[in-house]
Amino acid sequence: MNILFIMYDQLRFDYLSCAGHPTLKTPNFDRVAARGVRFTNCYVQSPICGASRMSTYTGRYASSHGAQWNGFPLRVGEHTMGDHLREAGMGCWLLGKTHMKVDAEGMKRLGIAPDSVIGARQAECGFDVWVRDDGLWAEGPDGFYDEKHSPYNAYLKSKGYEAENPWSVNANAGVEDGEIASGWMFDNADKPANIREEDSETAWLTSETLRFMDQAKGPWCAHVSYIKPHWPYIVPAPYHDMFGPDDVPPAVRSDEERQDAQPVFDAFMHNKIAAAFQQDEVRRKVIPAYMGLIKQCDDHLGRILDHLDATGQADDTMIVLTSDHGDYLGDHWLGEKDLFHEPSVKVPLIIADPRSSADATRGTTCDALVEAIDLAPTFVEVAGGTVADHILEGHSLMPWLRGETPDWRQFAISEYDYSSTPVCDKLGVSTRDARLFMVFDGRYKLMHAEGGLRPMLFDLDTDPDELNDLARGNAHQDQIARLYEMLGQWGRRMSQRVTKSDAQIEAGRGRSMRRGILPFLKDGSEVADELTQAYRGRAVDNHVQDDEA
Amino acid sequence: MNILFIMYDQLRFDYLSCAGHPTLKTPNFDRVAARGVRFTNCYVQSPICGASRMSTYTGRYASSHGAQWNGFPLRVGEHTMGDHLREAGMGCWLLGKTHMKVDAEGMKRLGIAPDSVIGARQAECGFDVWVRDDGLWAEGPDGFYDEKHSPYNAYLKSKGYEAENPWSVNANAGVEDGEIASGWMFDNADKPANIREEDSETAWLTSETLRFMDQAKGPWCAHVSYIKPHWPYIVPAPYHDMFGPDDVPPAVRSDEERQDAQPVFDAFMHNKIAAAFQQDEVRRKVIPAYMGLIKQCDDHLGRILDHLDATGQADDTMIVLTSDHGDYLGDHWLGEKDLFHEPSVKVPLIIADPRSSADATRGTTCDALVEAIDLAPTFVEVAGGTVADHILEGHSLMPWLRGETPDWRQFAISEYDYSSTPVCDKLGVSTRDARLFMVFDGRYKLMHAEGGLRPMLFDLDTDPDELNDLARGNAHQDQIARLYEMLGQWGRRMSQRVTKSDAQIEAGRGRSMRRGILPFLKDGSEVADELTQAYRGRAVDNHVQDDEA
Repeated sequence: MNILFIMYDQLRFDYLSCAGHPTLKTPNFDRVAARGVRFTNCYVQSPICGASRMSTYTGRYASSHGAQWNGFPLRVGEHTMGDHLREAGMGCWLLGKTHMKVDAEGMKRLGIAPDSVIGARQAECGFDVWVRDDGLWAEGPDGFYDEKHSPYNAYLKSKGYEAENPWSVNANAGVEDGEIASGWMFDNADKPANIREEDSETAWLTSETLRFMDQAKGPWCAHVSYIKPHWPYIVPAPYHDMFGPDDVPPAVRSDEERQDAQPVFDAFMHNKIAAAFQQDEVRRKVIPAYMGLIKQCDDHLGRILDHLDATGQADDTMIVLTSDHGDYLGDHWLGEKDLFHEPSVKVPLIIADPRSSADATRGTTCDALVEAIDLAPTFVEVAGGTVADHILEGHSLMPWLRGETPDWRQFAISEYDYSSTPVCDKLGVSTRDARLFMVFDGRYKLMHAEGGLRPMLFDLDTDPDELNDLARGNAHQDQIARLYEMLGQWGRRMSQRVTKSDAQIEAGRGRSMRRGILPFLKDGSEVADELTQAYRGRAVDNHVQDDEA
Repeated sequence: MNILFIMYDQLRFDYLSCAGHPTLKTPNFDRVAARGVRFTNCYVQSPICGASRMSTYTGRYASSHGAQWNGFPLRVGEHTMGDHLREAGMGCWLLGKTHMKVDAEGMKRLGIAPDSVIGARQAECGFDVWVRDDGLWAEGPDGFYDEKHSPYNAYLKSKGYEAENPWSVNANAGVEDGEIASGWMFDNADKPANIREEDSETAWLTSETLRFMDQAKGPWCAHVSYIKPHWPYIVPAPYHDMFGPDDVPPAVRSDEERQDAQPVFDAFMHNKIAAAFQQDEVRRKVIPAYMGLIKQCDDHLGRILDHLDATGQADDTMIVLTSDHGDYLGDHWLGEKDLFHEPSVKVPLIIADPRSSADATRGTTCDALVEAIDLAPTFVEVAGGTVADHILEGHSLMPWLRGETPDWRQFAISEYDYSSTPVCDKLGVSTRDARLFMVFDGRYKLMHAEGGLRPMLFDLDTDPDELNDLARGNAHQDQIARLYEMLGQWGRRMSQRVTKSDAQIEAGRGRSMRRGILPFLKDGSEVADELTQAYRGRAVDNHVQDDEA
């Protein structure tokens, strides 16, 4: 059994036809959903690329692994999906983006050579790399955002694109009046990208995927990780004009949200990204491009599915489709992600298991509260390994795929560290306190903010659009207290006892007694003779050869 | 400046004359107290050797480092006092006990050779080893509790002690009727140990300390870590009969404690150790031996102090005296440690800083809520380093030593993982839930127990002996809720973001914009031209050399 673990970056949960989008048709996502289970309540552990991915790849909460924002290194030695899968006999490969930042200081401190196999895996979040490309080859006055080598740019150059940074001026730009029209400018989002579709990022990574599958010896897990539909929002023809302003729904927002807004929410509503997405003309240009990017992803997913079918690999390949977070797209007066409204923190998750044990659930949906950290233990179970549940904090989804109803978590957690953003300065919150926590019990969603700021509360049963912050005016204290109790329970979780499993502890219980540790004996009669034989009936005559005595 | 960081194992906070003991005179502890500050409210982060020490040596809570019981390996890469001090230019040496268990699996996984300098420090909790001896060379049917080499036994053999395990039959046993009378049996606690006093563990480690100091090049921190007055409770002459039953205070306990007792407390009151210490005859034999062991420690502390004075090293050596936990000695119907009553969780802490900046506080006491994890950052400050407060969770005590009144913590935390004990089975609590947390705000002390068990609450102002559990009968909900809020706050602490300091985050704020990440531009006019120059005014004529087009 192999696992094709496909992640799309910044894909909203509701921008798929199987999830009910009215005009965006995604027949290939739907095809996987028809073969498997679509999880309708899957939450990422942090609504930002780097932290979310580190959680997904480690199976651990952001507060547990500590890499809580983009570019925060994942500390050396942290166990990853790759570590767990290789131990179970399954390879674990990367194709595309991880947003992993190596803990170079930690590697140096522990003397781990970056060019060793161990060092390379530490640097790549536990993956063996088929191709790594984080897809953000942006450049500014201080240089490149990503200072690594871009295999995608190398590919484009091999294809005849002659610019210094074709990612920037071809894949992510249009043309206007003979000049580059950058995809960074939302005004250009309706232009076709300045590239042949077959050379665009989504097409390129798909071709790499087929090439990988054609040579791979199983069992393998391949993390195929697309940068799209992540910004820059620009897409090559013919996708650039498949959707238009008529496909753009009204923003989900209300004036009420801006009254007495929770301070962090308020500050995000006033950042540069929000200011752009509050303009309807921005949404009318960006959202059709975003939809075009998704449509393109869907077509290339079709290539993969066809290839699996044609080669017979479909029969022993589990397909997993998900994202690292969503995109506000103007909802709640916001752009981008970062906070905990559904468009940001909820992601699509579709899993198709070809084995007969999953026949009963094909084409169904599952409403359980799922977290992205559930994927790593799911994959370990697929690989036939034992889930190291003293390390992995998620739970295998396999019971759901088999149609069982396991005991399940009562609440989902997500976290966001905004200490790297200007909001931290603006609010005068200390770097350490610039942290947010979401607790969602399936109905009520609490956002806790450190630093003495008030929480937010939504009742998704009565207010599915999350427009009415029930914590305003100090109301709903009972629900808030109940969710804080859940957060407290989570805060006390056992997350760092990674060197000792429950089974090892259980096997060791009372063992010290059998190794002579008996700090309770009055005269020795309290225990079997066997335990005290080292201390009994020994003559003292040879106890010391004492020249002085 | 050097630091002599002396730890006595299982030394109760109140068994020193400077702390008010009525008949046990400890003039050398008192001599250090007269030169420095005695902290009257110092709490260990776990009342058990291994976990407590790992907290003290890492400056981090037990839930943060994960080594939550004896023999749970400290995971590879965890930063230690030694890492921090060496970075500040100070050596960090071990003489005696640490209870460190190496994370051998982690070392192997990361390819760290045990015989390299890096590997050796990983295995020794960051210390460079002058001599390591954990002082528990006990043996049972399954072999030795500690499978390492015992330098103390080697020393004894070099001195002519011919037994296979002289630790067991000489240092920790008496003689009766020509046979070894093991120190494990409390009935033998009043016998003189079967060893010359000068060869006993406390004497030996003191001699090692003088030998270390005579050759050490500063600046150094030396962790001199005595096994005593830890059990086995037996002491060589003349200390074995310096104290007698008249010196034994009545046990601090009440029948009320046994009524409706909190289940974990109740189970511990029914374990083997408790059963022994509930017998007055046990206390009458053990406590005088315990006092003799402390008296011996005090005399050998005098040797060290005299040596420092004689060599002039006293002027540039900070002296720190503390313990890893206390000893119930029958109080609260208990023996040993493990729970959170004062005799178990509170430890002595005396710090004498010879520098003139500490003149104002000599001979004073400080009542601030101090945690053992405060020592590591204190030492970093002494070494002239910058406290890495994204890793170290304690706070430097130097302000208190200088007579300042810093902003300080509002509550102290301790934790106990009893999953390795029979109590876990007895209560039917899951291995993962066998965890206890203490929150103490200086007046109220809450014990939270996972697994759905009720908490305990004491008001130390009105009930300094902690005999009246206020949480009984569901009372005092307000205080309990207040302390749970503190525990919740602690549970959300930022403890794992160890790869990125606050200063690094602050310096990086907004940096991605200057590296071309601009996901908020409508037309580019929103920012300075400098930020968009990579994307503007570029002709497209050379964008692609397209043979097909």
